Amino acid sequence: MPNRERVTVAGVGMTRFGKYSDRGVRSLAEEAVSDALKDAGVAPKDVEAVFFSNAIAGLITGQEMIRGQVALRNTGILGVPLFNVENACASASSAFHLAWMAIQSGLYDVTLAVGAEKMTHPDKGLTFRAIGTAVDLEQIRELKARMESGDKKPEIEGGGEKKSFFMDIYAASTREYMKISGATASTFADVAVKSHAFGALNPKAQFNDRVTREQVLAAREVSPPLTVLMCSPIGDGAAAAVLMSEKYARRLGIATPVEVRASVIFSGRDRAADEPTALERVAKRAYEVAGVGPSDIDVLEVHDAAAPAELISCEELGICARGEGPKFLASGAMDLGGAHVVNPSGGLLSKGHPIGATGIAQIVEIVDQLRGRCGARQVNGARVGLTENGGGFLGRDAAAMSVHIFSR
Amino acid sequence: MPNRERVTVAGVGMTRFGKYSDRGVRSLAEEAVSDALKDAGVAPKDVEAVFFSNAIAGLITGQEMIRGQVALRNTGILGVPLFNVENACASASSAFHLAWMAIQSGLYDVTLAVGAEKMTHPDKGLTFRAIGTAVDLEQIRELKARMESGDKKPEIEGGGEKKSFFMDIYAASTREYMKISGATASTFADVAVKSHAFGALNPKAQFNDRVTREQVLAAREVSPPLTVLMCSPIGDGAAAAVLMSEKYARRLGIATPVEVRASVIFSGRDRAADEPTALERVAKRAYEVAGVGPSDIDVLEVHDAAAPAELISCEELGICARGEGPKFLASGAMDLGGAHVVNPSGGLLSKGHPIGATGIAQIVEIVDQLRGRCGARQVNGARVGLTENGGGFLGRDAAAMSVHIFSR
Repeated sequence: MPNRERVTVAGVGMTRFGKYSDRGVRSLAEEAVSDALKDAGVAPKDVEAVFFSNAIAGLITGQEMIRGQVALRNTGILGVPLFNVENACASASSAFHLAWMAIQSGLYDVTLAVGAEKMTHPDKGLTFRAIGTAVDLEQIRELKARMESGDKKPEIEGGGEKKSFFMDIYAASTREYMKISGATASTFADVAVKSHAFGALNPKAQFNDRVTREQVLAAREVSPPLTVLMCSPIGDGAAAAVLMSEKYARRLGIATPVEVRASVIFSGRDRAADEPTALERVAKRAYEVAGVGPSDIDVLEVHDAAAPAELISCEELGICARGEGPKFLASGAMDLGGAHVVNPSGGLLSKGHPIGATGIAQIVEIVDQLRGRCGARQVNGARVGLTENGGGFLGRDAAAMSVHIFSR
Repeated sequence: MPNRERVTVAGVGMTRFGKYSDRGVRSLAEEAVSDALKDAGVAPKDVEAVFFSNAIAGLITGQEMIRGQVALRNTGILGVPLFNVENACASASSAFHLAWMAIQSGLYDVTLAVGAEKMTHPDKGLTFRAIGTAVDLEQIRELKARMESGDKKPEIEGGGEKKSFFMDIYAASTREYMKISGATASTFADVAVKSHAFGALNPKAQFNDRVTREQVLAAREVSPPLTVLMCSPIGDGAAAAVLMSEKYARRLGIATPVEVRASVIFSGRDRAADEPTALERVAKRAYEVAGVGPSDIDVLEVHDAAAPAELISCEELGICARGEGPKFLASGAMDLGGAHVVNPSGGLLSKGHPIGATGIAQIVEIVDQLRGRCGARQVNGARVGLTENGGGFLGRDAAAMSVHIFSR
């Protein structure tokens, strides 16, 4: 399936990620959308279709069903086609993909993808319970029942006040990865050190402080070997992107057009352990469609919901060889000046992870990198960038997995 | 925006609508999908992309974010792109539209649209509260505060055990409509009589019993002038449609292809009272795209969440003149043998209204009518059909409004 239309990302915008006790989904979405429209040089009335991503407002605020209409009510954009899209932590990439597909269809020249999430709530347990719906709940209830009849009793639904049970799932796959790769807790601490160093250079990141390996290792344990500094935080935020057909962008004279070279998303499925993962399948297709390979990727944003995932994703994307993640990290290849700079935004670990906004926020970073607008964290000469955004669990697969490739 | 690709509805399927105490979203979706695939003559592995609609499972069962993956987990379809789509009571039409757009994009030849909803719950108040999220909740809370400082005190959030506050909104617009059209409670009772007469001919309808005008008028009052027999019931169900590019359908030798002549959906917006409604705007565009006019529509399914809406929708669609709904009904034009048969499935009133399934269920009926498969309720010689499906409220507009036009 080759791309029929060339699609340009004409403008991007995002709020700083963080904890906003006094702002909701609407206020966050409005800021991101306003910035993206301004960046693209278009007015609200120019937007022809909207794809709105949010994952947990239904359980946090009670607002369901028409979240995008409610959030964008005062923007002057409504009246056009608007679709509310969900795919757990890959919701925003899904919205972006559909905004891209809408232009592929020939129906529209200008579309808007928005992701907005308000996760913080005075009742932290509510947030964790909401996050916990990104799995097959019936299966989890069965699993929980089985686990409770044994020794280990993880607090499955939300993990009480202290953590999401997601981190138990991540920790289990991390322990498996350690066996294959020789990674240790120190390796993952080094990932967090790199993330925070980048976060310190990103004014939109939730965390702007550097950390040391010792601080990461000594932090509160979440689920062994993960400490809290190896896990993405709870936070709020929004991100938006204006997409255009290339011909329209050219007519408008967009200064530094960034092209969507591939937009691929697959759902997970119940697969055997030796079958390709969702990410491997998606990456293969994305490289084919884009006509580039892993060696061409100058900069990438991957889904580091926990630190080990940054290495595992690089391996499944073919950026480094299988089992070589720790060596790749130690080589400095992922840092500024390296061959493939990974998560220069600070990633989910440091930039933050308001789940319905994350996929588009990754795209914001890559677009800004390709336009050379990233200041101290700029990847010099970046020409090709990639985002990887996964959502939920289905058996041993992600429930939704997406890869986007961009070039200037 | 002319259609770039001709798209065929190759197969449809649906469960009977009703109250299923022992079945959930997955079981209902599986039945509808299996029937639609069989009808199209394709296998699960032939499906290239899935658009899944559900509106309230998050609040009823707690399952959010990856509802489609969870529902279709055992069907053999997963692994392809899958998007979870919401737009209140227009969720299913939204999923269908995106499945259609996916073929317009040239990326796919075979897509699947599925809508599934489980509304019944031992706690009826929970269902009504869930339905009540199809509005701007912040605005409703303000409205409620204002109303409570006056005489009238509607039970806004869910209306306790007996009704959804939606019916208060419908009742208010009904009273306005009565002034314009001269309609009386008896007029709306006659709509319900017609609906139930059709429902009696549809084995998939929730209600298969005929009713009399007197029974409708004497039924429990919900919100004046609406009685419970003038309001769509709470129910469960699923519906699915397989869409194909025309060239693929031809290759497959689909026996009675039904073409999607127009698929149009707009979000509502805060509009002045004298500006066109969302439905008027959508209908105008749909007729333009399809190249047909209201007089060409042999059979239509409209969104009669309450009985008066059947007449109002016909007027806004131009099927009859403004204010002429009661006369149009009395003329018999909406009945079998009339010029424009309306809601031969029994409509939302009698077929039922599991909200995330409704839009596709309407399409199932029109496709079956155009293929001549409707038995005793068949509209003879039907060549062009239309569905109208609205969702939620935003000020005085629907939050999402869609019209589809089909022909054989």
